[in-house]
Amino acid sequence: MKIGFLGLGTMGTGIVTNLLRSGHEVTVWNRTPSKCREFVKEGALKATSPAEVIQDCDITFSCVSDPTALKDLVFGNCGVLQGICQGKAYVDMSTVDVDTITDVHEAVTVRGGRFLEAPIIGSKDSSCNGQLLILAAGDQTLYEDCFSCFEAMGRKSFFLGEVGSASKMQLISGLCSSTVLAGLAESLALAEKVGLDQDQVLQILSMSSVNCQLIKQKGIAMTTSEFSDPNYKLHLCQKDLRLAVNMSDTVDQPLHVGAAVNELFKKAKSKGYGEHDVAAVYRAANL
Amino acid sequence: MKIGFLGLGTMGTGIVTNLLRSGHEVTVWNRTPSKCREFVKEGALKATSPAEVIQDCDITFSCVSDPTALKDLVFGNCGVLQGICQGKAYVDMSTVDVDTITDVHEAVTVRGGRFLEAPIIGSKDSSCNGQLLILAAGDQTLYEDCFSCFEAMGRKSFFLGEVGSASKMQLISGLCSSTVLAGLAESLALAEKVGLDQDQVLQILSMSSVNCQLIKQKGIAMTTSEFSDPNYKLHLCQKDLRLAVNMSDTVDQPLHVGAAVNELFKKAKSKGYGEHDVAAVYRAANL
Amino acid sequence: MKIGFLGLGTMGTGIVTNLLRSGHEVTVWNRTPSKCREFVKEGALKATSPAEVIQDCDITFSCVSDPTALKDLVFGNCGVLQGICQGKAYVDMSTVDVDTITDVHEAVTVRGGRFLEAPIIGSKDSSCNGQLLILAAGDQTLYEDCFSCFEAMGRKSFFLGEVGSASKMQLISGLCSSTVLAGLAESLALAEKVGLDQDQVLQILSMSSVNCQLIKQKGIAMTTSEFSDPNYKLHLCQKDLRLAVNMSDTVDQPLHVGAAVNELFKKAKSKGYGEHDVAAVYRAANL
Amino acid sequence: MKIGFLGLGTMGTGIVTNLLRSGHEVTVWNRTPSKCREFVKEGALKATSPAEVIQDCDITFSCVSDPTALKDLVFGNCGVLQGICQGKAYVDMSTVDVDTITDVHEAVTVRGGRFLEAPIIGSKDSSCNGQLLILAAGDQTLYEDCFSCFEAMGRKSFFLGEVGSASKMQLISGLCSSTVLAGLAESLALAEKVGLDQDQVLQILSMSSVNCQLIKQKGIAMTTSEFSDPNYKLHLCQKDLRLAVNMSDTVDQPLHVGAAVNELFKKAKSKGYGEHDVAAVYRAANL
Repeated sequence: MKIGFLGLGTMGTGIVTNLLRSGHEVTVWNRTPSKCREFVKEGALKATSPAEVIQDCDITFSCVSDPTALKDLVFGNCGVLQGICQGKAYVDMSTVDVDTITDVHEAVTVRGGRFLEAPIIGSKDSSCNGQLLILAAGDQTLYEDCFSCFEAMGRKSFFLGEVGSASKMQLISGLCSSTVLAGLAESLALAEKVGLDQDQVLQILSMSSVNCQLIKQKGIAMTTSEFSDPNYKLHLCQKDLRLAVNMSDTVDQPLHVGAAVNELFKKAKSKGYGEHDVAAVYRAANL
Repeated sequence: MKIGFLGLGTMGTGIVTNLLRSGHEVTVWNRTPSKCREFVKEGALKATSPAEVIQDCDITFSCVSDPTALKDLVFGNCGVLQGICQGKAYVDMSTVDVDTITDVHEAVTVRGGRFLEAPIIGSKDSSCNGQLLILAAGDQTLYEDCFSCFEAMGRKSFFLGEVGSASKMQLISGLCSSTVLAGLAESLALAEKVGLDQDQVLQILSMSSVNCQLIKQKGIAMTTSEFSDPNYKLHLCQKDLRLAVNMSDTVDQPLHVGAAVNELFKKAKSKGYGEHDVAAVYRAANL
Repeated sequence: MKIGFLGLGTMGTGIVTNLLRSGHEVTVWNRTPSKCREFVKEGALKATSPAEVIQDCDITFSCVSDPTALKDLVFGNCGVLQGICQGKAYVDMSTVDVDTITDVHEAVTVRGGRFLEAPIIGSKDSSCNGQLLILAAGDQTLYEDCFSCFEAMGRKSFFLGEVGSASKMQLISGLCSSTVLAGLAESLALAEKVGLDQDQVLQILSMSSVNCQLIKQKGIAMTTSEFSDPNYKLHLCQKDLRLAVNMSDTVDQPLHVGAAVNELFKKAKSKGYGEHDVAAVYRAANL
Repeated sequence: MKIGFLGLGTMGTGIVTNLLRSGHEVTVWNRTPSKCREFVKEGALKATSPAEVIQDCDITFSCVSDPTALKDLVFGNCGVLQGICQGKAYVDMSTVDVDTITDVHEAVTVRGGRFLEAPIIGSKDSSCNGQLLILAAGDQTLYEDCFSCFEAMGRKSFFLGEVGSASKMQLISGLCSSTVLAGLAESLALAEKVGLDQDQVLQILSMSSVNCQLIKQKGIAMTTSEFSDPNYKLHLCQKDLRLAVNMSDTVDQPLHVGAAVNELFKKAKSKGYGEHDVAAVYRAANL
């Protein structure tokens, strides 16, 4: 089974490395072609366009930064669609909105291809360590065909039903974790203002019922101002929040807190922290 | 060493039980005297006023619901102050604001008494199981004298310095955990509206970096609508939030998200869930 | 000069009436054709598709409810584009986002047509009374050619420069007035809860520096619960807010208050008040 | 009838000037005594303590900055209470919370004095021009005795019933106008970010249904960054908001938007604009 991969960003890099290590044959493509070199050294093949990857492979995965990038990749010149035909399978792992993924799904299946959406929960670290959570929805036979790949990338995969369900789940998981981050950021900022020792705050939180990996890791990042090596980029996190708030709009579900969290991340982005780690939301809270 | 305890509410009940079990001699008082009976059966002594408890004991603890209740207890008729003199020690474990605890501290010490504030992090369960976190500040010798008592009540105690520091820390811990709860509530409410399975949401969160005891326990409570047996009462949680937001005011620290969380809890209270468990904040999100 | 008009909703109805009264020759089209009859009685001509209106007229105006409806109207089967050629002029008066209006502008001009965006500020009443404010941007010669029409519809028109500027201005004006409404709604809800006379609140506001037509009119609507005859529909107002919040996202401008206002309107919509007047946002505040 | 006045701040200055101009005999006191000189030049008498003013006068007014200042004035050494006895009348015009004003009311009446709360709506300008709105509650005969004074100070006075009603009304009026200001600030900040001309925004708002004196005046202040000559100080406005949000807490009325507005003002205060005009809330929106 020949595997293709489109998009060698933070997540793609870790995923492809794990696919290669686990013995898969992988053909890669990236918008900036130079990024492909390191993978070619490790045994990957290189193609010159998304369409070519699709044509050369049985199953092609992609992971790009946002809905606009995905639409370019799929519908653009020499894009995914131009390679799709009966027998081809395409799996997108980007975090996008339901409308976008539905459009892609329709375009692929109308040409006879099989489609699976498979957005992921995790960070740079978990993508490198093969510890991603994979939320899949769409063609169930394709989900099963992806088994060895998902095993290489992640710690656990879920099949959630019809296309759209996985995107929704991913946005909701992101909403919850972003709110946790915002709560941590404001708590630490307030602690500093009232003269408490932030390390002691973290120690106490780590013994309380909110003790979790996110608070531990990002708490240290916040108190030491280590934001420059992004595990997950702040502007991507804010984009996920925007998509979640817009999704809430389609079903008339007010998100009083979620909307406030979105604005806090927006504020951090406006302060120039978009390319930093999500923990930099602290800068919006303590400014 | 004779121990006194004032206030046999949710927290006090668990604490006194653990003090008795660990072999301490305890004299109790409660505003509603009938509540004392069960402890008398277990070997506690009973007094008729806060002042009498103070007079009869070496160290007296108290745990009441809010700043107003504490002021009544301390400054009221036959209150704590009327028993305080040199040699007496008083430890308050309520969650109150810094101004209130500072007033109490001054009134006690000016009469020659020793004072420690020792608010707690935890719930009904952790008070019953002797698993509270105890945040202490004030008289350090008194903190040391309380060692065997704190060991009976809690899993860990911290000495945080001057009076006020523990109250601040407690409010900040509460701000963080309330924000986590609000994020969980909105995430689950949105999940339901977009047609996802809430149990699957919880399963996925439990595998992600926000996995913590609070999300696990309260997630189940939210999806099963089990709010009536309060582990921590919603109106007390909202009171803590109000105190945190007001504290942020004194140091000019905006809490864009924290304020939104406070309003969400206020909404749940306005819907009649004040005496229910904090997890009932879900009702404000999904209404 | 032959005038066309597409979309006979709340706003379109008032506008076309005023165009006819002022002696313009108007050809109308509406998705639900029966709505055209009353205008035919008043002297309007009727066409069977948007394309036909464009072909029959020199300048065609449109006013529909949201970006999706506008895209259908323009790009759909027998849509605006199919009638556009050199010599034709098209003016859209809907409230949409900048991306949508830019797409429409490009599609029209690439076919040789002239384009003007001209969203409006006002309500049913001001459209009936020819008292709309018209915010125009795009082709300045077309703006001048619309002079007699704008005079019939509105009290004042502004030319704001390049396409997109008018949409932006419209969203910003809506953001400001929605925030005023939300503030009024929460103030009146709080007044009732604390036992004040709401009419007295309105009287005092009407003598203070916030005295304006919006507060006067909507204040009465809120205190008398008269929401069923919409002057401006709540779901349209919320759509404008969503577009404003999304616009703020593109320029990294946090809208801490605007986002909270959007959620309040969303809440009112979720309570079933979408088709009611905007004043029904009071129902989200006093629930 | 001898009139006393305590507190010669921004508001007090204008009020006393108008009392003197209208022919009243006025005895003044101020915490910083030098401030009294200018009024003595204009014919005022000067006293050395609040108690002395009360003793020397029939009706004494006060206007100070917040609840703490009022409590000092009334309950402090040589304070108001020490002069109160049968025959004395005391009218407080500060903006405070209901609990504070109720405490003052009880302390005055228990000593045989008459009490009226009379908080005001207005700014430095309206206090200078005798154009304040006066919200009175408490002793109705005293309200009537104040007639000539209120006429000198204000444009209109209202009698609202029992003590507390006027404070509540004042907080609600402030909540509404602060929300309007926040909406204006965010609208102008967004306008600038998307490249619109802010003067044109103001012109368009001035022709729309939100056209009011507050938007006109503060809009100009925001676009020209003229905040240094405070008509109403930002930190006082934020204090009023805090009191309104806390009042909402006592009656379980969520203020989703009002709480967001409070945080925005808090942010402006944290940026050092507390002593500037309220219009400086713009600085929190455009930072």
